[in-house]
Amino acid sequence: MSGSTLGKNITISTWGESHGEALGVVVDGFPAGLDLTKEDIQKFLDRRKPGTSSATTSRKEDDEVCILSGIFEGKTTGTPISMMVKNTSQRSSDYSEIASYYRPGHADYCFDEKYGFRDYRGGGRSSGRETIGRVAAGALCQKLLSEMGIDVYAYTRSIGDVEIDDEKFDRNAIYTTPTSMPDTEADKKAMDLIMKCRENMDSIGGVIECRIKGVPAGIGEPVFDKLDALLARAVMSIGAVKAVEIGCGTKAAKLYGSENNDEFIYENNSVSKKTNNSGGILGGMSDGSEIVIRAYVKPTPSIARSQNTVNKSNENISINIKGRHDPVVVPRAVVVVESMCAFTLLDLLISNISAKASNIINFYKK
Amino acid sequence: MSGSTLGKNITISTWGESHGEALGVVVDGFPAGLDLTKEDIQKFLDRRKPGTSSATTSRKEDDEVCILSGIFEGKTTGTPISMMVKNTSQRSSDYSEIASYYRPGHADYCFDEKYGFRDYRGGGRSSGRETIGRVAAGALCQKLLSEMGIDVYAYTRSIGDVEIDDEKFDRNAIYTTPTSMPDTEADKKAMDLIMKCRENMDSIGGVIECRIKGVPAGIGEPVFDKLDALLARAVMSIGAVKAVEIGCGTKAAKLYGSENNDEFIYENNSVSKKTNNSGGILGGMSDGSEIVIRAYVKPTPSIARSQNTVNKSNENISINIKGRHDPVVVPRAVVVVESMCAFTLLDLLISNISAKASNIINFYKK
Amino acid sequence: MSGSTLGKNITISTWGESHGEALGVVVDGFPAGLDLTKEDIQKFLDRRKPGTSSATTSRKEDDEVCILSGIFEGKTTGTPISMMVKNTSQRSSDYSEIASYYRPGHADYCFDEKYGFRDYRGGGRSSGRETIGRVAAGALCQKLLSEMGIDVYAYTRSIGDVEIDDEKFDRNAIYTTPTSMPDTEADKKAMDLIMKCRENMDSIGGVIECRIKGVPAGIGEPVFDKLDALLARAVMSIGAVKAVEIGCGTKAAKLYGSENNDEFIYENNSVSKKTNNSGGILGGMSDGSEIVIRAYVKPTPSIARSQNTVNKSNENISINIKGRHDPVVVPRAVVVVESMCAFTLLDLLISNISAKASNIINFYKK
Amino acid sequence: MSGSTLGKNITISTWGESHGEALGVVVDGFPAGLDLTKEDIQKFLDRRKPGTSSATTSRKEDDEVCILSGIFEGKTTGTPISMMVKNTSQRSSDYSEIASYYRPGHADYCFDEKYGFRDYRGGGRSSGRETIGRVAAGALCQKLLSEMGIDVYAYTRSIGDVEIDDEKFDRNAIYTTPTSMPDTEADKKAMDLIMKCRENMDSIGGVIECRIKGVPAGIGEPVFDKLDALLARAVMSIGAVKAVEIGCGTKAAKLYGSENNDEFIYENNSVSKKTNNSGGILGGMSDGSEIVIRAYVKPTPSIARSQNTVNKSNENISINIKGRHDPVVVPRAVVVVESMCAFTLLDLLISNISAKASNIINFYKK
Repeated sequence: MSGSTLGKNITISTWGESHGEALGVVVDGFPAGLDLTKEDIQKFLDRRKPGTSSATTSRKEDDEVCILSGIFEGKTTGTPISMMVKNTSQRSSDYSEIASYYRPGHADYCFDEKYGFRDYRGGGRSSGRETIGRVAAGALCQKLLSEMGIDVYAYTRSIGDVEIDDEKFDRNAIYTTPTSMPDTEADKKAMDLIMKCRENMDSIGGVIECRIKGVPAGIGEPVFDKLDALLARAVMSIGAVKAVEIGCGTKAAKLYGSENNDEFIYENNSVSKKTNNSGGILGGMSDGSEIVIRAYVKPTPSIARSQNTVNKSNENISINIKGRHDPVVVPRAVVVVESMCAFTLLDLLISNISAKASNIINFYKK
Repeated sequence: MSGSTLGKNITISTWGESHGEALGVVVDGFPAGLDLTKEDIQKFLDRRKPGTSSATTSRKEDDEVCILSGIFEGKTTGTPISMMVKNTSQRSSDYSEIASYYRPGHADYCFDEKYGFRDYRGGGRSSGRETIGRVAAGALCQKLLSEMGIDVYAYTRSIGDVEIDDEKFDRNAIYTTPTSMPDTEADKKAMDLIMKCRENMDSIGGVIECRIKGVPAGIGEPVFDKLDALLARAVMSIGAVKAVEIGCGTKAAKLYGSENNDEFIYENNSVSKKTNNSGGILGGMSDGSEIVIRAYVKPTPSIARSQNTVNKSNENISINIKGRHDPVVVPRAVVVVESMCAFTLLDLLISNISAKASNIINFYKK
Repeated sequence: MSGSTLGKNITISTWGESHGEALGVVVDGFPAGLDLTKEDIQKFLDRRKPGTSSATTSRKEDDEVCILSGIFEGKTTGTPISMMVKNTSQRSSDYSEIASYYRPGHADYCFDEKYGFRDYRGGGRSSGRETIGRVAAGALCQKLLSEMGIDVYAYTRSIGDVEIDDEKFDRNAIYTTPTSMPDTEADKKAMDLIMKCRENMDSIGGVIECRIKGVPAGIGEPVFDKLDALLARAVMSIGAVKAVEIGCGTKAAKLYGSENNDEFIYENNSVSKKTNNSGGILGGMSDGSEIVIRAYVKPTPSIARSQNTVNKSNENISINIKGRHDPVVVPRAVVVVESMCAFTLLDLLISNISAKASNIINFYKK
Repeated sequence: MSGSTLGKNITISTWGESHGEALGVVVDGFPAGLDLTKEDIQKFLDRRKPGTSSATTSRKEDDEVCILSGIFEGKTTGTPISMMVKNTSQRSSDYSEIASYYRPGHADYCFDEKYGFRDYRGGGRSSGRETIGRVAAGALCQKLLSEMGIDVYAYTRSIGDVEIDDEKFDRNAIYTTPTSMPDTEADKKAMDLIMKCRENMDSIGGVIECRIKGVPAGIGEPVFDKLDALLARAVMSIGAVKAVEIGCGTKAAKLYGSENNDEFIYENNSVSKKTNNSGGILGGMSDGSEIVIRAYVKPTPSIARSQNTVNKSNENISINIKGRHDPVVVPRAVVVVESMCAFTLLDLLISNISAKASNIINFYKK
C-alpha cells in the first residue's frame, strides 16, 4: 500500500522529507479552466509559516511555492498540477543526535521497526513540513469552492484550557491573532499560557474547529465514503490529531434521542433544521446545515526539558531535545485542517454529480 | 464515486437494503488456505442480532449467513468470498408512512436531495442492517488475526452517564451482558437507564471501546494511510458514530507535552512504553503498545414520542414513528466497531509486508 | 491486491466459481433513477447462454438473473445493485479427474502454484461462467448508454480463417446467427469449420470486433486512464483474449505517417475525420469518430483429443478431457466483449463531466 | 477521474508538459532499503534520449534526473521517491503556429473538446516527454527486479517491413544499434528505411517486444487484475501504441486448440511447457515460462509534408508541421515499454505475497 495519495476524482500525492531537497504535491484530476496564480497558493502557505509570532518556533521557513506543471496562461489545464517548496532553512546539525535514540511522542521507533532504519534528520516524512503539500493542494480547492459559493474556514477553538467565547466570534481575528483564534481576548489568554509553556520547556495541545457553509444537501456517499468518514480520515491523517468529532460529537453519547434529534422545519421557502447537533451531516450525507468538525491536537512532542527514553543500543537514557520547536502546533495546523476538509468536500461534490442518471444524460445532451 | 467498497489488499463491498430481498458482502483478496466454516461467521452475526434482550428491539432477525463462493473443502480459496443474509422478518407496512416525510436524525431528506427519491422501507441503505455485511467480513478477518496472535475486542464503555469501572473489567461479561459491558454492575445500571428510555419513548447514546493486542510496531503508513486515520474512517463510517478518538484522544488537547509524551523503556528484553496516552499509535504507525480506539455513538433517532418535522409537500407536521426500535444501538454496534477495526488492521498488516525490499527479495528466494 | 473489482466512478465486483452455489456481481455507484427491469438484464445474459446452437456446448445453463438490491419500484436507487445467478446444471462429476493433473492451456498449474491448491471443479474462478457477472453489469450500462444515444455493439469478425465481408454487414444477423456473425454467408462457412473441429475433437479461435457510435470527442484521460488503455485492460481481462487492437491496430506498425494519419475535415457544420485509422481514439481520448476495438480469442483449451501433460505427482501422462465443451468460445464471448467496452466507456463518460471547472460550478448553480 | 497514477502497492504518478518548467514522477510505496544512486536512474533515461543517432530527432534533450526525496544515505527509505527532469531545450517558438489548428494523428482536437482549450506548446501532456517519469520509475523497479533474479528487457522487433531474425538475436545490440534492434543486419536495413522516410518527409511505425525471464508461476490475479490485462493497459497507455499481444497473440485466433495448447512436461526436476504460445501467461497468471508481450507502434504523426486539416475557425486548411521530429518513435519507446512492463510486474509480485494465509502468518511469526 502506498499511502501518500488521497482522493478519487481529484487526488493529491504529497512527497518529501523535512530535511531533503524539497517537498511537494501532485494534484491530479483538478478541473480545467480555473484562473490560478502563484499568489493564490502562496497566501495559504504563508498561514502555516512559522516565525511570525512568539507562539511558534523561531525557525525561518520561507516556503515559497513553485508551480511546475498544470497551469497555462494563468489557467488550470486539467493535467496534474505539480507544486514544490525547496527546503532552505533546515539545520540538520540540530538533529544529528536524534539518530541514536527514540524521542517520546515521535514516530522514530515505529520507523525503525517498519523500514529497518530512518531518515533521522528532523521528522523525516512525519515532519509537519509534509503538510506543505496538503496546504498547497487545499489552496487550489479553496479557489474552486469559493467560485461555487462554498466557504470552508478553520480556526483555533481552544489551547489547553483556554477556549474561545462563541459570543465574541470575530472571523477576521483568525488571520491576525498569533493563535488563529477568532476571539482576541481568548487569544491573549492563550498566548500567556503558551509563553508559560515555553518558560517551562514544555508544550500544550488544543482544538481546531472547521466550519463549512453553502454545501447543498446530499453530498457524501451512504456507506464507506460517508462525508463524515472521509473528513475524519483526512483530518486524523494530520500528525498530531488524536480525536475527530462532527457536530455535537462526543457529547452525543450522553444525550437522549429527544435532545439530539434536530427537527426539520420549512420556512423561508426551504427545508432547514431548528438545531444542528448533527453538525450538518446525517447518514453520511450533508443535510444542508453548516458542517462542523473538530480536531483534537496533542501537545508538541518535542520539548526541551529532560525526558527518559531508550537508545538504539537498548539502553535506558535521559535526553534533552535540541532545536527550535513550536510550544504549540495548533495555530499552524489550522490551515492544514481547513485544507484537508476543503479537499475532501470538493472530491465528494464532484462524485455527487453522477448520483442521478438524469444528470449524466442531461450533461451529454448539451 | 462508488462508496460501498473499503480496503486495498483486501476489499469488502457491502450491498443491500433493510427491506430488500437480501443483504450481503463480497470480500475480495482474502488469502487462501484458511480453515473456515459457516459457524465461524455465524457466531459473529449472532452478536449483532436483536431480540436477545430487553435492551434491543423486539424484532426477530434470524440473519443466517449463506456462503456463496470462495470456500472449497472447508478452506478459503483466495477468490472472492460472497456472503448473503436473506431479509425474512422485515415488516414493510410499519414503514409505509415514512415515505411522505423526513424523520429527524435520519438521512431521509439527504437521500431525496441526492438521488431524487428513496427506498422508504426502513432505513434502506442507511439501515443498521447494512452492517451485516461488515460483521460477516469482520468475522473472516478475526479468524486470520487470531491465527496471527492478534486479539481485537470491543465492548460498551458507557451508555448515557453510566460508564464501566476499569477495575471491574471482566472480559467474558462482554458476551453475556445485554449491554455488552465488561462490568456486570455497570451493565445493571445501564439496563435501568435503557428501560427508563423505553418507558419515556426515548433513546440514549453511548461509547464503544475497541482494544487490540499483539500488533507489532510499524503497522500503518506514514501519511494518508495512517493506522489511526484509516481506523477513524472505518469507524466513523458506521451510521451512528459522531466522534472517534485514539488513546487519550480528546483529553490530549488539554495536556502538556510533559504529561502526554509516553517515555520509552527497555525492560524484559524489549522496548515498550511506560504509559499509553498514544493509544498504541505514533506517527500513524503502531508503536507496539495496545491499540485503543473509542467510538461515540448518538442515541437512536427513531423514537416513539411525538416530533416535529417537514413532509414532502413542505408542510410542517408532527409525527409519531411506529415500528420496533432499539432504545440504544450501542450494544449491537459493538461487534460492528470490532469488525471495522479488525478489517482495517488486517489490510494494513498485509501492506506492511512490502515495506522492506529485503522482505520481497527473501520471499521470492524461497 | 484484490483483483475482482473494476472501475472508478462505477465499480463492478464479480464473484463466484463455475461449480459453487452461485455467481454474481455487485455494481456500485450506478446512478439513480434509471428504469430497470429484470428483463433488461436477462436478455443480455441469454446472449451468452450455451446450448442454443451446434456451435456451442450441449450443456444447459439457464442462468436466470435474480436482482437482490439497488432497485426500488422499477428504478435504480443509486445504491449497489447486487445480481446473482444460481449454478443449477453443473455436473461436478465430469471434473473429478481434473483434480490430479494440469490441463494444457488452462490455469490449473498457475492456481496450484499461487494458492497452494485449487477448486478443481471446472474452471473454478477462471471459468467462462465468471463472465455472467460482467454481462449482467454490462446490460445495466447498455441501458443507460442507449438513453444517452450511444450505441455499443460487438460481433464475431472471424472464426479461424473465415472472416466476415464488410460489404455484407447485416446488424440483425449478429443476434440470429449461431456464430454471432453479421454476415449470414460467412456464418455458414464458419459453422462448417466448427463442425469439422467438433468431429476432430478440436477447437478453433477467432476475432471479436466492438464498435461504438455516438461518443463525443474528449472521453478518456490523457495518461494512464486513456480510453484505449482501459478498453485494452478490460477486454484482455476476458479469459481467452490474447491480443487487443484499436482502429487499424497491428497494421499501423507497417504504415507510413502519411498513410496512417487521418485528416480532419469540416463539413456539415462539424469537425470529422476523412478516414478512421485511429479507431476513434487519439491521445487516449475519443476523437468523435466511431470507436473500433478488436479482441483476438484463442481456441478453447478443453479439447477431447488426447494430450500430454503432467500430474500433481510430477509424472508425464496422457489425458483425454471429458465434459461438454464449446469447440469455439467466440460466439458466446461477443456479449462479454461488448459488456466490458460498455462499462469502461460509461465509467469514463462520468469522469469526463468534471474535466472543466465550469461544468462543476454550473452544476451546483442549478 | 485523475488518470495520471498507476498501480496499487506501488504507485507512480507522472506530471508535466513538454514545454512546462519540468516533468517528473512520484513513486509511492516503493520498498525501503534498496541501494540506489542517481546513476541507476540516469542510465535508463539516457536510453530514451534523442539526438544520439540519425534515427531520431536532432533536438538535444539532456534530461538529467534530480532525485528530490525518498533516498537517504544511498538507500530508498520507503517514502515517496520524487524525481524531476527540467525542460531546458524546448523551443516553444516551433509550436506557436499549432495553437490555431488540429494536427492529424495528434490529440489537439480532443484536448480542446475535453478541456475547452489546451497547452499548445508541443504535445503538452500528450508529449512523448511525459514518458520521462515512466522511465525513471521503471529504472527503480528494474533495480529491485534484478535483485530478485528477474530480467525484463525490450527491443525493437520490427520497423515497417524490416523485422529481426530470431536466429541472429544479439542482446547487446539492443543497447548499441540506433534502432535498438538485437540484430545488426536488420538494424542496417531499418536505418535505410528510416533515412528514406526522412527524405520523404514521412515517418514509419514498428513493433516493440518485451521479454521477462525468471518470473515464478502464479503472478497476476485471476479476474480483472490479470497479469496480461494489466500489462496491456500499461503498454497501451503509451501514446503511440495501437495494439498489444501476448505470446502468439493475434495468431491464436486462427489456430486450432491442438496447435495452440502448450503441453506441460516434467523434466530436470521441474514442471515446464514444451512450447510457449501462451507467452508465459495462462488464466491471467504467469505459468513459469518466459513472458512475451508485443506493442504495435504507429508512425510518428508529426510529418513535414503537407497535410489537410481544420483550424479553430472551422476552416479547411493545408499545413506543414515545423519542428524537429523523430521519423520513427520505436527505438526511443523501447525503454518505455520495458519500464511499463517492469512496473506492472513488480506491483503484482508484491500483491502475490498475500495470496496465501500461511505467508502472512509466517511473516509475522518471524
